[in-house]
Amino acid sequence: MTGTAREFAASGVVTLTTDFGLKDPFVGVMKGRLVEGFPAVRIIDLTHEIPAHWPAEAGFWLSRSFRYFPVGTVHVAVVDPGVGSARAIAAVEAEGHLFLAPDNGLLAPVVESASVACARHVSGDALLRLGVDAPSATFHGRDVFAPLAAAVAAGRLRPADLGDAVNELVPGWIEEPTVGVGQVTGTVVTVDHFGNLITNIEARHLEALVHPVARVAGRDLPLRRTYSDVRPGDYLALVNSFGVLEIARAERSAAEGLGLARGAPVAVVSR
Amino acid sequence: MTGTAREFAASGVVTLTTDFGLKDPFVGVMKGRLVEGFPAVRIIDLTHEIPAHWPAEAGFWLSRSFRYFPVGTVHVAVVDPGVGSARAIAAVEAEGHLFLAPDNGLLAPVVESASVACARHVSGDALLRLGVDAPSATFHGRDVFAPLAAAVAAGRLRPADLGDAVNELVPGWIEEPTVGVGQVTGTVVTVDHFGNLITNIEARHLEALVHPVARVAGRDLPLRRTYSDVRPGDYLALVNSFGVLEIARAERSAAEGLGLARGAPVAVVSR
Amino acid sequence: MTGTAREFAASGVVTLTTDFGLKDPFVGVMKGRLVEGFPAVRIIDLTHEIPAHWPAEAGFWLSRSFRYFPVGTVHVAVVDPGVGSARAIAAVEAEGHLFLAPDNGLLAPVVESASVACARHVSGDALLRLGVDAPSATFHGRDVFAPLAAAVAAGRLRPADLGDAVNELVPGWIEEPTVGVGQVTGTVVTVDHFGNLITNIEARHLEALVHPVARVAGRDLPLRRTYSDVRPGDYLALVNSFGVLEIARAERSAAEGLGLARGAPVAVVSR
Repeated sequence: MTGTAREFAASGVVTLTTDFGLKDPFVGVMKGRLVEGFPAVRIIDLTHEIPAHWPAEAGFWLSRSFRYFPVGTVHVAVVDPGVGSARAIAAVEAEGHLFLAPDNGLLAPVVESASVACARHVSGDALLRLGVDAPSATFHGRDVFAPLAAAVAAGRLRPADLGDAVNELVPGWIEEPTVGVGQVTGTVVTVDHFGNLITNIEARHLEALVHPVARVAGRDLPLRRTYSDVRPGDYLALVNSFGVLEIARAERSAAEGLGLARGAPVAVVSR
Repeated sequence: MTGTAREFAASGVVTLTTDFGLKDPFVGVMKGRLVEGFPAVRIIDLTHEIPAHWPAEAGFWLSRSFRYFPVGTVHVAVVDPGVGSARAIAAVEAEGHLFLAPDNGLLAPVVESASVACARHVSGDALLRLGVDAPSATFHGRDVFAPLAAAVAAGRLRPADLGDAVNELVPGWIEEPTVGVGQVTGTVVTVDHFGNLITNIEARHLEALVHPVARVAGRDLPLRRTYSDVRPGDYLALVNSFGVLEIARAERSAAEGLGLARGAPVAVVSR
Repeated sequence: MTGTAREFAASGVVTLTTDFGLKDPFVGVMKGRLVEGFPAVRIIDLTHEIPAHWPAEAGFWLSRSFRYFPVGTVHVAVVDPGVGSARAIAAVEAEGHLFLAPDNGLLAPVVESASVACARHVSGDALLRLGVDAPSATFHGRDVFAPLAAAVAAGRLRPADLGDAVNELVPGWIEEPTVGVGQVTGTVVTVDHFGNLITNIEARHLEALVHPVARVAGRDLPLRRTYSDVRPGDYLALVNSFGVLEIARAERSAAEGLGLARGAPVAVVSR
């Protein structure tokens, strides 16, 4: 975490990842502030349905998604149970992208996944220069992150202007998979819209296994390439399009079928 | 309601607030018509999850949110149980913003909250000039409001072109809080995504109270600054980032914990 | 299906229709790829809440919605239980719009509703020219459809470049209504956000009926013009704003009240 191979040059794109949901105007007013601060900003929602107060999933998806956006994108993630307390704001520069989030472990997966990353704490001075001097105590997404992201996306603030580099951010909330001889053990990070169980086990963790089989809820599931490789209703495991192990059920919900949810352990063993 | 301190000059931004939900293509086709009418329009969703047929919440959130958008924004709100009947379309100009909605009480909170507001009924002539002559009987969001908002946001129609000023709009659906000696009584207007109970009691209503305490569901809750001022699971009251009293539970749902919903009474008393 | 009266000229607008939901970053990363491939693209969500793996509803709504978007719009629909299998990608040109979807029956309603339509299978060559050579086996929305749509919306690929015309696409999943003497029988295609039952019976199917009455769940319901023509809580039938018969209940959910869902039969008879 001591430099960046590729310097950040703003593309004008901002992504948003929050636990705000879409039922209230919270996301809308964040966008209002973004447009006010940078009328030409291009805003893309990553998701606003992160489980409330659980930054781990936001960081997981960001680390798996950011490379599908143009280099120069500002990624804002606000899952912030400590809003209004003394928690810092983290700014991470990695692979030509810039990430802004509360320093509560959210960005740990991004830092871990990036080849080189530079982390900073946003300074009070930087915020004052943006006119952010008396934010609300409960909605920093609108009052702090939106004007900050607008200024960075517009190129008015460079990453180096945001504050001093720090050596460490608050660590992540999910343990890395355990890799043993002939076995890897990981965790279900989230259940997706289709009921697929998404784990933190990556393809690289499986490299040493011979004929790997996923062991979950008392079943041994072969690794397949895609859902249509099995019959509708059958279970399967696969390395999904985000590069992690997924437990799925063709045209059905694996989560419902297996009675599993976030946090469930998943092992992959050599057959 | 007899003039506007700040004249409306279109910024090209349009916000949308409806009870359409996101499951059907209703919001999408509204946006199609907006883009057709004004290709450079900038559309921001405020929310589409207003409870079906309940304009009161749309007006509440609009009145609390519009100032976070650029001056010159057109705010379209369609919660319209009387669609196809003889109800008028209201156009309100306030603080440099323009609001379009069915005249069914929806815009009352906007008019009340604005220092100066000018209300009009959109005339049949204005609609005819837009080519709106035979709208469907059931979807004026797409057939009337979208082309109307596009024309105003593009600057082709000025507020004064929309129709004659009117002295009164249909009144709002929620009573103002009752302010007595040492006590204020209000109502839960909505429960947000986090389970926080959002009331219509404003900070100014509390000014005369000494050591105010929120009384709700048999509990007396102290007013705090932010969620992290109490332990996870504890209840609190606070004046939230939209300037109204909120009953919350740190990192939990106050609505579930207290068994309360929209419409519940909330009092604040001097201790 | 042998030509198009109106040639496609890209407007820069892309609509998205999927069964991805909004809880995961799937839609967001599709948009990232679209913006990367065409920075000026204008993206409008039609809906992402199509029932999982049920392309029929996506095609139904698309065929009823596309005319509300500017001519030259690219409509991308991804409901794709066969992703990763050998299923083709269909490109349909109709009335100056272009549609991209898996060839699994999804686009059948579009082809049926259009006066003239030209269908193609997207060729491997076209994909290779876009750099799509090794897509994931499970997420063609991001890896195939997004770069393809970006190239077409940007005008870099013309419809004729996409592949050879084909005479037939995979047929649709919902049978056309049965039109008999004094009776039309159709199907509930979807239940909307308000609980209205949306059928596939079109206004033209009713033309031969005398004093038509909708017969559903043991009730005979008169055809009305709009919801406010009956009292709150009363049932009605109407030809809705998308031109199809709808069973509704004023200010309530007809689906809940009648205990009906997708797939239910609906008849309209002469009284």
